[in-house]
Amino acid sequence: MSKHSIYPITLDGNSTEQKRQEIKEYFHNTYELYEKVFEVLKDDEVFYKKSEITRHPMIFYYGHTATFFINKLINMKIINERINPSFESIFAVGVDEMSWDDVDSKNYNWPKMNEVREYRKIVKDKVDELIINLPLTLPITDDSPMWIILMGIEHERIHIETSLVLHRQMPLELVKEIDEFNLCDEVGDSPKNEMLKIPTCQVNLGKDKTHNLYGWDNEYGEFSEDVKEFQTSKYLVSNGEFMEFVKDGGYEKGEFWDDEGKKFLQLTSAKHPTFWVKDGEKFKYRALSSIIHMPNNWPVDVNALEAEAFCRYKSKKDGVEYLLPSEAEYGAISRHVEMLDILDFDETNANQNLVNFSSCPVDKHDFKGIYDVVGNVWQWSRTPMRGFDGFEVHPAYDDFSTPTFDEKHALILGSSWASSGNLIMKNSRYAFRKHFYQNAGFRYVISSAKDKDLGDIYESDELVSQYCEFQYGDTHFGVNNFADECAKIASKFATNKTKALDLGCATGRATFELAKEFDKVEGIDFSVRFVGVGSKLKSDGYVAFHSVEEGEISTNKKVTIEELGYEKLKNRVSFWQGDACNLKPNFNSYDLVMATNLIDRLYNPRLFLDTIDERLNKDGILVITSPYTWQESSTNKEFWLGGYKDEDDVEIRTIDALKNILSQKFELIHLQDLEFVIKETVRKYQHTISELSVWKKK
Amino acid sequence: MSKHSIYPITLDGNSTEQKRQEIKEYFHNTYELYEKVFEVLKDDEVFYKKSEITRHPMIFYYGHTATFFINKLINMKIINERINPSFESIFAVGVDEMSWDDVDSKNYNWPKMNEVREYRKIVKDKVDELIINLPLTLPITDDSPMWIILMGIEHERIHIETSLVLHRQMPLELVKEIDEFNLCDEVGDSPKNEMLKIPTCQVNLGKDKTHNLYGWDNEYGEFSEDVKEFQTSKYLVSNGEFMEFVKDGGYEKGEFWDDEGKKFLQLTSAKHPTFWVKDGEKFKYRALSSIIHMPNNWPVDVNALEAEAFCRYKSKKDGVEYLLPSEAEYGAISRHVEMLDILDFDETNANQNLVNFSSCPVDKHDFKGIYDVVGNVWQWSRTPMRGFDGFEVHPAYDDFSTPTFDEKHALILGSSWASSGNLIMKNSRYAFRKHFYQNAGFRYVISSAKDKDLGDIYESDELVSQYCEFQYGDTHFGVNNFADECAKIASKFATNKTKALDLGCATGRATFELAKEFDKVEGIDFSVRFVGVGSKLKSDGYVAFHSVEEGEISTNKKVTIEELGYEKLKNRVSFWQGDACNLKPNFNSYDLVMATNLIDRLYNPRLFLDTIDERLNKDGILVITSPYTWQESSTNKEFWLGGYKDEDDVEIRTIDALKNILSQKFELIHLQDLEFVIKETVRKYQHTISELSVWKKK
Repeated sequence: MSKHSIYPITLDGNSTEQKRQEIKEYFHNTYELYEKVFEVLKDDEVFYKKSEITRHPMIFYYGHTATFFINKLINMKIINERINPSFESIFAVGVDEMSWDDVDSKNYNWPKMNEVREYRKIVKDKVDELIINLPLTLPITDDSPMWIILMGIEHERIHIETSLVLHRQMPLELVKEIDEFNLCDEVGDSPKNEMLKIPTCQVNLGKDKTHNLYGWDNEYGEFSEDVKEFQTSKYLVSNGEFMEFVKDGGYEKGEFWDDEGKKFLQLTSAKHPTFWVKDGEKFKYRALSSIIHMPNNWPVDVNALEAEAFCRYKSKKDGVEYLLPSEAEYGAISRHVEMLDILDFDETNANQNLVNFSSCPVDKHDFKGIYDVVGNVWQWSRTPMRGFDGFEVHPAYDDFSTPTFDEKHALILGSSWASSGNLIMKNSRYAFRKHFYQNAGFRYVISSAKDKDLGDIYESDELVSQYCEFQYGDTHFGVNNFADECAKIASKFATNKTKALDLGCATGRATFELAKEFDKVEGIDFSVRFVGVGSKLKSDGYVAFHSVEEGEISTNKKVTIEELGYEKLKNRVSFWQGDACNLKPNFNSYDLVMATNLIDRLYNPRLFLDTIDERLNKDGILVITSPYTWQESSTNKEFWLGGYKDEDDVEIRTIDALKNILSQKFELIHLQDLEFVIKETVRKYQHTISELSVWKKK
Repeated sequence: MSKHSIYPITLDGNSTEQKRQEIKEYFHNTYELYEKVFEVLKDDEVFYKKSEITRHPMIFYYGHTATFFINKLINMKIINERINPSFESIFAVGVDEMSWDDVDSKNYNWPKMNEVREYRKIVKDKVDELIINLPLTLPITDDSPMWIILMGIEHERIHIETSLVLHRQMPLELVKEIDEFNLCDEVGDSPKNEMLKIPTCQVNLGKDKTHNLYGWDNEYGEFSEDVKEFQTSKYLVSNGEFMEFVKDGGYEKGEFWDDEGKKFLQLTSAKHPTFWVKDGEKFKYRALSSIIHMPNNWPVDVNALEAEAFCRYKSKKDGVEYLLPSEAEYGAISRHVEMLDILDFDETNANQNLVNFSSCPVDKHDFKGIYDVVGNVWQWSRTPMRGFDGFEVHPAYDDFSTPTFDEKHALILGSSWASSGNLIMKNSRYAFRKHFYQNAGFRYVISSAKDKDLGDIYESDELVSQYCEFQYGDTHFGVNNFADECAKIASKFATNKTKALDLGCATGRATFELAKEFDKVEGIDFSVRFVGVGSKLKSDGYVAFHSVEEGEISTNKKVTIEELGYEKLKNRVSFWQGDACNLKPNFNSYDLVMATNLIDRLYNPRLFLDTIDERLNKDGILVITSPYTWQESSTNKEFWLGGYKDEDDVEIRTIDALKNILSQKFELIHLQDLEFVIKETVRKYQHTISELSVWKKK
């Protein structure tokens, strides 16, 4: 039994009181385990260091999981009050390395560790209070307030695992050994690998909404594939098995690496797996907080690019094509060994749930003849992360999976010694960029399967596609492109044109348009689903989306950066995820802030209006457009700026409220109507008349 | 204990299996009790007779409650297959006497009783099967499929009560006595009534969504009123107390009756309560199936107009104003006597739940000094039926309450001996037109409360208001009124102009417009919420609605029949509730059928298209307009006409599907686009381009 990690709770049950107790226990176990894991860092100084240049310093991660609870609870309007707006802004984004997560440390003034520890305590008490007091009916479903608590817990479980990887990447002198964090002591020679047949079968993946364990958005829906007979390696590839590839100079031979792999070699000058430590002619092995003799019988930790290179090397040597398994093939293996789900699965049968704080021999955990089907290290797949049929984002976390649906994120299968909670559930699905390090290795297969290559990645999100059509598609009813018009009008009124902010930038069209006039333009949106489009236009040079014609029939549309004439502007623009009601401090010194169709979608528009002047330069311009369509799903009625009657039964209009709020710090210099049309189908449009107001900072 | 009727089930619980058993038992009790109640009718012949000229023959009611289950289950897409489309059309509508419920018997070819009995059996088996197999989590909420089953059961409970009234109205020779249906045997002199004080208090009504008993839409929401001290009669008004009014010639003296009351007297020539039977100089009393000596100590059964007349009579006599209680005052009485809800309430303490099959003495059931606070007979209120704050229709039954929000339906308070199920729950609210007979009497109060008079009845339903604005409001973006344009185009293509059908007539504008050309136009809509608007324009001469400006701020708009120029057309139009996929047989012989924006909102558009030719005359014209916005919330994907890819990956467009389906029986003679604009707020519009196709019957 794991001393450290309890199993996740079920969503159903008969007693809400008992369920609250179970959730509380599971929350405490998670929250305390997370803090325990950070004891690996030698002292508080280390929290300000990065273990990876592309990532945040460790203090970010320490604060992040606590702010996550508050940010999601605020976002879902379950609570109204922030605990520490500054922390909840600077600790807000980031696990995967995305272009819109700003990891440039000079942009952050990290707080003192004691303040963060104190903050974590307050959050813990707040969550405890909610666990006892939130409305609760069983089963807990994804629209229950309690789901957000479970989301926070499972999110922290993920960070327990990823933080352990970051700690392991820290220089040895910055970490310390924790007595309770026992390494496996079974070290020896690697067993000879062999191939085993998996018979033809149909694999059905995807979890039903009624499943009684918490799930992330990407786990739900349906997927079915007929998997033809194939062979799989009996064991994960061990350090011993991988050694041959290294010794044969595998890292130096271009033929084994694809373009992405070659780029990785070039950037890192890697000559061997990252957790191997060169020791004369031999290699030692970096465990969590120590360097030990090479455990040849443990699985090798590699990224997907290294795993693929090994497969190409072995294919050449044996004259047979070895591949990483597809997601469906892994499903077939799992089915073949009659894998049980967590709760029915005894954790002593696999190296997971922090029973050890290291890998263990690849020939230790036998699943009906195939070893380590789950546990030990994650296994890279050749299948990119994709949504199953019926995929839907969860409104509280719409960017958990969607940014990974880019055909660049490879699935990791199984689980590792550091996995717990949702990570060890049978239906869970995680993916990383191929150069990323995790507690991940691989097994290989011999398979005749044909994989789909999707080519250009067309936006699969209906709402994002609709916005792409709005910003990059055709015009209708003689109404000009709204993003263009807004950018033109805003540029006309701006006195200085050094730096502009496009707040609520959606798919980024106006951000680029503003860059025709401004030296630097930052586009910010709350939703990474949207920010990703502008970001992709900048990095990949195109936007591709579906334009709905009738029912489910749509046309694929692709617009390139050349067609748009933005090629020369792209270095002027950048895209970031951000909350307009709680922007990070480094977003400042603007000559223009443009907020198009934003204010009536904010959870607290007043917060935005009361502080935006601080981010504007002298003579700076604020442009607001909105049709003032207040709705409770976006903004609780108490936070509406207008569109209601006050206590004296006086009708409050939004434009009057804006004048009231902004008049102290701004002068209203222009007011006009500006139409826009959003296409829903070839026959159905939203035709809206927004009010555009231009405010000059006094 | 009632031998006949068990108490309703709770919505919560720990075991779904047990809950299914409870629902099944409750369903059987209800369904069998309903059939038992119809044994009062002497033989099968009687089922073809009406007990009230304004109502259907009894066979309708016998079939109606069974078809209700199927119609609602189809409507909610819980089942796809009808059991008997013909029965489910002719038995579909009707409890209250609404202008859109067609009770003209020549329009119906009623089936044989044995067929209806057989049908009831099949429905019972189907419902039994669903009770066991529908997905079920506890608590059952109003979006659970099982809610529809409970809705069917509670609907039948209502008809148990109203059918007993109809049976009691049947001539004595057409009914028989049922041994088990025992009358109360306590008959005697009426007690002297007196007034009791109810102290000032705050009354809060309205049920929370989490309440653990089934509720109808009108019970949910919030209502609060400060009720000043008032006096209430200790007893319900007995036959003995009412006798004085009758003997004093109360039914002949116009001063005691308002306009509606005078009209009632004129139409009925009533001289005494309807269940009193003149016997020489004296009166006897019609019980369910027998005539008995006048029970002076039982409550009088009267309609609201008679109750109000009595109050005016007594006011004049005593020099004090007596009124019927308001809903809030009744709430104060209920609060004062610490009324318990059903389940905590022992039915032997009140005359309800069919413990007797008659009233009983008004001085028998004491609630802390006030008698018959619930039970015996319903008590007419002076408050019209209105929705509480936060009122929402249930999607399966959007016309349960909304047609009664017309200030013409008075609430009935308490419950009667024939009430069971939801009818005896503390939060239930029912209302009837004031001339209607139920098992209802009254108590009176002396009160200084000021009641609200709402004047014109503005549409409170947001969607209906939006449609009123669409059909009767302003035009936008230079796009003409859509209903006018459709009517014009359709009239142009019609060869003969005797009779037209406006199918999916919504708020009725096009129905009136077509009447400029056609001698007779019938408007049909699935939703009574919509049909009610056209019907009100015809009967009351105006349409009044809210036009949203911004957020919750809206303008009241009123359009009169004179302004529209429809005064002379009103006798040409009629409005009916109906299902386009299962129209009643009497809707036929049309020269024009116009289906505007209908086909993509039908649950099975093919059913409509395949049979509509049968309802058209020779050379008849079918006009279809639609933007083809297929959506699963209206139409399961398997029933979409177009907007999908078929098995061979061929895109199927709706216009091509229409050509395929209709070409055998129709010739396509005209095709054009026709725009329309629906206002959501003063700044936000739906701008749509429908396709209008004109088909001539071959």
